[in-house]
Amino acid sequence: MHYPNGKKQSVNAASTSVNETIYSNRGMTLEADINATNQFYLQTNQAIIHKKPTPVQIVRVDYPRRSAAVIKEAYFKQASTTDYNGIYKGRYIDFEAKETKNKTSFPFHNIHEHQIDHMKQVVEHGAICFILIRFSLYQKTYFYPAERLFDHWENQFNGGRKSISIKTIEKEGYIIPIQYQARVDYLKIIEQYYI
Amino acid sequence: MHYPNGKKQSVNAASTSVNETIYSNRGMTLEADINATNQFYLQTNQAIIHKKPTPVQIVRVDYPRRSAAVIKEAYFKQASTTDYNGIYKGRYIDFEAKETKNKTSFPFHNIHEHQIDHMKQVVEHGAICFILIRFSLYQKTYFYPAERLFDHWENQFNGGRKSISIKTIEKEGYIIPIQYQARVDYLKIIEQYYI
Repeated sequence: MHYPNGKKQSVNAASTSVNETIYSNRGMTLEADINATNQFYLQTNQAIIHKKPTPVQIVRVDYPRRSAAVIKEAYFKQASTTDYNGIYKGRYIDFEAKETKNKTSFPFHNIHEHQIDHMKQVVEHGAICFILIRFSLYQKTYFYPAERLFDHWENQFNGGRKSISIKTIEKEGYIIPIQYQARVDYLKIIEQYYI
Repeated sequence: MHYPNGKKQSVNAASTSVNETIYSNRGMTLEADINATNQFYLQTNQAIIHKKPTPVQIVRVDYPRRSAAVIKEAYFKQASTTDYNGIYKGRYIDFEAKETKNKTSFPFHNIHEHQIDHMKQVVEHGAICFILIRFSLYQKTYFYPAERLFDHWENQFNGGRKSISIKTIEKEGYIIPIQYQARVDYLKIIEQYYI
């Protein structure tokens, strides 16, 4: 088992701090922005959305005297679902967040097949499901509906391209303006197009 | 949120017609039973419910050549939400599972305050929220609505008891008969009282 995408920064999931006053968005990861956004939604009682913990296969745990248990050997596992879910106005919300350095398109190797399967399942049961895609070079973040993703995903197995062009994402998705409090204000898109 | 009252008789009536095959539940943990149940719900496309990974604070990771990253130092963190959530017929489902060896009551030290806070939040947003409580000595499992839990929880800070008696759980909750396939068939309760 290996860690998906080799993205070391998501290991420090717990380290995202809220309420940073003097702040610049430059250099912030998408994950940090989403965590701050979810925290803001929670504090303002708009929606209850959490990131799931990184799945870890624990192999060995030490129990030193008088102190907390220490995990001494563990491995990253592939997630079987998306990273974020929760509830907004009674609706089940489910999404994945992906950042890419690619200049022209969002490559599918960023997504695992079982994540697509999961997204299809929840959509079938009535979820509001999407991915948040950030093109880090341009610092542009898009809300991209899962339903659109499925078609492009399937096409790759029928000779189609193994990515979605920015143009297509711009056409089929919604850009999310970076803001101060809700840095990635995806609820606004949901409110406008789903509710 | 409509909380269903006084329909307890019919649940017990319905539960007598359960197909008990040659199967003993002895020795299975509640978690294993719920995982098997969720797997069955998934396979039969009834509901999409997953257990969240155990939250872990990762401190040190080694990257040996030619092999997977190894977590060398990590610590267990307290969960900030409940363990299970997902979607059923478009509704957001959220619950916690607790097993106790206590003979007469369910002690509150099994639950953390922030889990109660989380349950209150999702209930306010329209979730179907509950705890599954198993008294392991009797191998009896109850579906207990979060709304009822809140009252008892608050009472402990006003001189009330720090647990809920089995009698109260029997009166306010619903027993879940152990079955072969959906071992802890909580959807049946949801179907009857919430949908």
